[in-house]
Amino acid sequence: MTANNRIVSGMRPTGPLHLGHYFGVLDNWVELHKDHQCFFFVADWHALTTEYADPTRIKGFVPGLVQDWVAAGLDPARCVMFQQSEVKEHAELSLLLSMITPVSWLERNPTYKDVRDQLDEAKDLSTFGFLGYPVLMASDILIYRPKWVPVGQDQLPHLELTREIARRANHLWGDFFPEPEAKLTRAPKLPGLDGRKMSKSYGNAISLGEDLDGVRAKIKPMLTCTKRVRLKDPGEPDECNLYPYHLLFTPQEKCLEIAKACREASIGCGECKKIMGDNLTAFLEPFQERRKAFDANPDLAWDILRDGNDRARAAARQVIGELREKLNFNF
Amino acid sequence: MTANNRIVSGMRPTGPLHLGHYFGVLDNWVELHKDHQCFFFVADWHALTTEYADPTRIKGFVPGLVQDWVAAGLDPARCVMFQQSEVKEHAELSLLLSMITPVSWLERNPTYKDVRDQLDEAKDLSTFGFLGYPVLMASDILIYRPKWVPVGQDQLPHLELTREIARRANHLWGDFFPEPEAKLTRAPKLPGLDGRKMSKSYGNAISLGEDLDGVRAKIKPMLTCTKRVRLKDPGEPDECNLYPYHLLFTPQEKCLEIAKACREASIGCGECKKIMGDNLTAFLEPFQERRKAFDANPDLAWDILRDGNDRARAAARQVIGELREKLNFNF
Ligand code: SF4
Ligand code: SF4
Repeated sequence: MTANNRIVSGMRPTGPLHLGHYFGVLDNWVELHKDHQCFFFVADWHALTTEYADPTRIKGFVPGLVQDWVAAGLDPARCVMFQQSEVKEHAELSLLLSMITPVSWLERNPTYKDVRDQLDEAKDLSTFGFLGYPVLMASDILIYRPKWVPVGQDQLPHLELTREIARRANHLWGDFFPEPEAKLTRAPKLPGLDGRKMSKSYGNAISLGEDLDGVRAKIKPMLTCTKRVRLKDPGEPDECNLYPYHLLFTPQEKCLEIAKACREASIGCGECKKIMGDNLTAFLEPFQERRKAFDANPDLAWDILRDGNDRARAAARQVIGELREKLNFNF
Repeated sequence: MTANNRIVSGMRPTGPLHLGHYFGVLDNWVELHKDHQCFFFVADWHALTTEYADPTRIKGFVPGLVQDWVAAGLDPARCVMFQQSEVKEHAELSLLLSMITPVSWLERNPTYKDVRDQLDEAKDLSTFGFLGYPVLMASDILIYRPKWVPVGQDQLPHLELTREIARRANHLWGDFFPEPEAKLTRAPKLPGLDGRKMSKSYGNAISLGEDLDGVRAKIKPMLTCTKRVRLKDPGEPDECNLYPYHLLFTPQEKCLEIAKACREASIGCGECKKIMGDNLTAFLEPFQERRKAFDANPDLAWDILRDGNDRARAAARQVIGELREKLNFNF
């Protein structure tokens, strides 16, 4: 149990990331990777738990995920970006931990029922793999013996299960896994363009790779405060779909100014949208800038992953080697 | 799905093998390996499902198992003897197959309840790994895409579950796994020295490595037909603990002769035991002979395994590579 500042986190490759993914998750990764040893993985095996009937789609989303990460500000030289399925030690540890994890712990896992209910009813998710995905998740984390795991408030039960599995392993096999601690993430909620949760399936998302003219075109038709029928009707920013965007992309002082002007009807929604659009596109511009490297080199995402896979594998082998030593499985 | 004559089978490293293991299992392996491509594995990960609380014991049984195999007549040059945990592709395939295996298939698995009931109640076997051991077993088999699996009548439900998982994989992902067929094993039941099932824990077993004087010493006190109180009392071979041993180790003609002599009280139990003891030790002599190579070279068992691990790994990687290609997981 070496003192470390390691961090592990992963994302499923299920489509392009949007601003809703950025705020609360990716922005935290970007912050954390500046002064921690970070392992960020493409959770392709996890994607299989729900996409098992047509796994061939998954690959198409993998390089895009890496592009989104880099575009958002992750520097591949300062962290390890890799693919879960390319580090077989995750599967090996998962098998080992499955031997000590009571089925009852998995059945009572609150997200087990939740996730299953959220998903398409046509998909039969009563699979052994779906029941056991917290074991795989525990392995994804513990195989790097990290100090921290970045999680939102709602994912705390998951992390607690990982910690319980670590404790049980330590109890049965002797101290080995540090119990990873939660790095609670700020979660400034960015609603979708229509005020509902941002989601690709609602058609209310701005993806990180969206071209800037497209972004402006999406802002224009946004519904604003319904009180502002005519220009001279005062509005209420707290009832406007656009205003939360100002709070994230417009400097605070300017936000207060706009809120006041809205309530006094001294600014029109068109102008207000233009200001926000300028700020949002200015925010996204460096994203597009960093993305250019991928246009120039179509193999870049795979190159980044290949390098990361090697580094992750080396770290994982080290830990599984020590664990096998401890279990006297060092044949 | 190439035409093949491959065979896969495994044994848990839980202690020295005895004659009860030989007849019905090992003797079949020896026959089969003469004209099939055989993969025989030390199921160390499977041993973990029951020994997870003290896995350090497992290693001690591994080289002994290989010695017993070779002593019984398996030629390491004619088959692949390897360790399950040294071929991580078993764990990888297990993870993949877990995604498509309904939990209900595992819960209804008849041996699930049976095995759990048979085992020490102190061991809590309601673990995720124990519930899922048929998935791991299916992976152990399917990773080599064999034509046959040698099984006893009682293990047919297990094999059927493997076949069901193969069918489901083929249905979802396209034809890939041949459904392995049962190579039904002859099972001449050899009872223990006291007539009960032969088992180390009953103290009624003759282990394959037992020295020949020890074998004779164990035969002497065996209880024979209770009708033979005095030498002139006729006996009944069918009610004698010794006679089943004659049926296996004494030539058929001689068996009939002995049975007749027993019923006519023209042979004494002492003489009868001596004949059987001669035949049994003659049977075991080549076992001891083949075992000498291991006394001469303490690393031999590990050398055999290292070579087998390499060969098994190459075969497993080939198949998992093709499967990943099919799933578009060939990153
Ligand atoms: S002026 Fe701005 S904040 Fe007010 S309703 Fe219009 S868009 Fe929303
Ligand atoms: S003579 Fe042989 S077969 Fe008959 S009771 Fe004695 S030991 Fe058994």
